[in-house]
Amino acid sequence: MADVMRYDDNCLFCKIMRGEVPSDRVYEDSFCYAFRDIHPQAPTHILVVPRAHLVNVTEINRENGDLIGHVFSAISKIAYREGIAEEGFRVIANSGPHAGQTVPHLHFHVLAGTQLGEKMV
Amino acid sequence: MADVMRYDDNCLFCKIMRGEVPSDRVYEDSFCYAFRDIHPQAPTHILVVPRAHLVNVTEINRENGDLIGHVFSAISKIAYREGIAEEGFRVIANSGPHAGQTVPHLHFHVLAGTQLGEKMV
Repeated sequence: MADVMRYDDNCLFCKIMRGEVPSDRVYEDSFCYAFRDIHPQAPTHILVVPRAHLVNVTEINRENGDLIGHVFSAISKIAYREGIAEEGFRVIANSGPHAGQTVPHLHFHVLAGTQLGEKMV
Repeated sequence: MADVMRYDDNCLFCKIMRGEVPSDRVYEDSFCYAFRDIHPQAPTHILVVPRAHLVNVTEINRENGDLIGHVFSAISKIAYREGIAEEGFRVIANSGPHAGQTVPHLHFHVLAGTQLGEKMV
């Protein structure tokens, strides 16, 4: 996979993945890192972050797409480990200002542990 | 990619992709199909569906992960075509009862066209 270790010195998530900022780690492998959100919106709220510094979904293309497949297979694995696979969970990627993306490094929210609302926006 | 054409006879999204149920198509290629949600939650509300009948995110693994990468590169392409790439958009996959998944065929909501709320659940 291309650019897998392309860290950004000033990025919060890159700092977390380098261990410079502490995090409550849930899972990690060579291509992604997962930790609990410090402002959870549900009983389970995990952020899954590819190590490669892609800004958001707009930067996904045929060349780096395999990385996203890997991230989703990690999310599936995490769901089983966390015991939320059966009851269910929501996966969200916010891209850009209209979605309220706060950290400009692609990440996926995994939300679970209660009945989630039908409203998604 | 494995099982790409594994349609399910009774699945609404499989019927849409076979043309048996009408849809307002936005994009399609060999691996996925995108159309407008008939009950939009935002000015732009598109569903992006892999043709392979995976039930939800729990069924994603190393073997079919490349399909998900492909779907996300299609989502990126759709975002540019729809003119929502810059302003931003939210991508959501609901898996299982707690997330209110209504159709048991993996699909990604793409929501945009207005400032989306910070609340994701």
